[in-house]
Amino acid sequence: MEERLQKQLAFCLEIDKAKNIFRQTHLSNHGRNENDAEHSWHMALMAYLLREYSNGTVDIAKVMAMCLIHDIVEIDAGDTYAYDNGGLQTQNEREEAAKQRIFSILPEDQAKDLMALFDEFNAYETAGAKFAHAMDNLQPLLLNDSNGGGDWVEHQVTAEQVYGRQAKTKLGSETLYEVTDRILQKNIERGSLKA
Amino acid sequence: MEERLQKQLAFCLEIDKAKNIFRQTHLSNHGRNENDAEHSWHMALMAYLLREYSNGTVDIAKVMAMCLIHDIVEIDAGDTYAYDNGGLQTQNEREEAAKQRIFSILPEDQAKDLMALFDEFNAYETAGAKFAHAMDNLQPLLLNDSNGGGDWVEHQVTAEQVYGRQAKTKLGSETLYEVTDRILQKNIERGSLKA
Repeated sequence: MEERLQKQLAFCLEIDKAKNIFRQTHLSNHGRNENDAEHSWHMALMAYLLREYSNGTVDIAKVMAMCLIHDIVEIDAGDTYAYDNGGLQTQNEREEAAKQRIFSILPEDQAKDLMALFDEFNAYETAGAKFAHAMDNLQPLLLNDSNGGGDWVEHQVTAEQVYGRQAKTKLGSETLYEVTDRILQKNIERGSLKA
Repeated sequence: MEERLQKQLAFCLEIDKAKNIFRQTHLSNHGRNENDAEHSWHMALMAYLLREYSNGTVDIAKVMAMCLIHDIVEIDAGDTYAYDNGGLQTQNEREEAAKQRIFSILPEDQAKDLMALFDEFNAYETAGAKFAHAMDNLQPLLLNDSNGGGDWVEHQVTAEQVYGRQAKTKLGSETLYEVTDRILQKNIERGSLKA
């Protein structure tokens, strides 16, 4: 088999491991913890369905690809909870090493393509990256809200912490930030989020 | 909140259930059964990475969307194993009812869009549908091969049955069918597939 195709198939098998990287978010109906592959599938499909709410014009194929690959580095780096300050300090370093190892399994042109997509996502500068981040925020918010905000209660997260992260949704979508704000206010009122 | 956005968010929450629809395929490294959300994520990303091997020119955003939504009907219809002849006879009817209920949660234009994508996938006529089906075949093949063909052994599937299904990969990608053929021959030789 051609070396190029061999590398591509090796990468396709390697990323299967993302299905065993579990997040703090729980599935709806008080389900088990969600894994990275499921989260990424959900985000990509939400991006497709909610693209009309992006503040800026986006290339939806690129945004979907960004959603699909944004957590692959966690195969090596592990999931860093959004409100784990210790973990957040070392996150960039861990994820950079993972990016180099995992994406380099691909042929060079595709390794560069995926590293560029991953970097674009993390740089938070383009309309596509901002919208993909809005999905990364909104997707677990919908699940957690459907479970009565249980993930916030479990981790004793404050409204200030959650607003600190979720406020960035405004950069990707003013409309979806209004939804976010309404959900957070509801959870403050019902006591799931400490004001 | 605007009715349109309410419907879209209701759909985004409904599809979370795909994460609890389990398939016969096992994850690599002799892992647990895979679910529909994980399988769809994997397929969509494989489509993005292997698109150069499609026989025909494809709109990759459309193919990825097709991969992401193709199994959502299984939330109601359940997973039908590729070699379950009894289940296959009633599959179309069950999936048609599921398609109507689930996609109709969306605003009408998007319900039509997703139903059309789902129908295009199942009609097996366009280059995009054929390539998406090639991913639907190749993705579990890679996992099962990495596990020594254990899924075929468990279900006592014959080479003839597997070739019957996998031969269609040729319609989407001649190159990836060569890969498929090589993997199947290897599994016949090691006795995981009954000749």
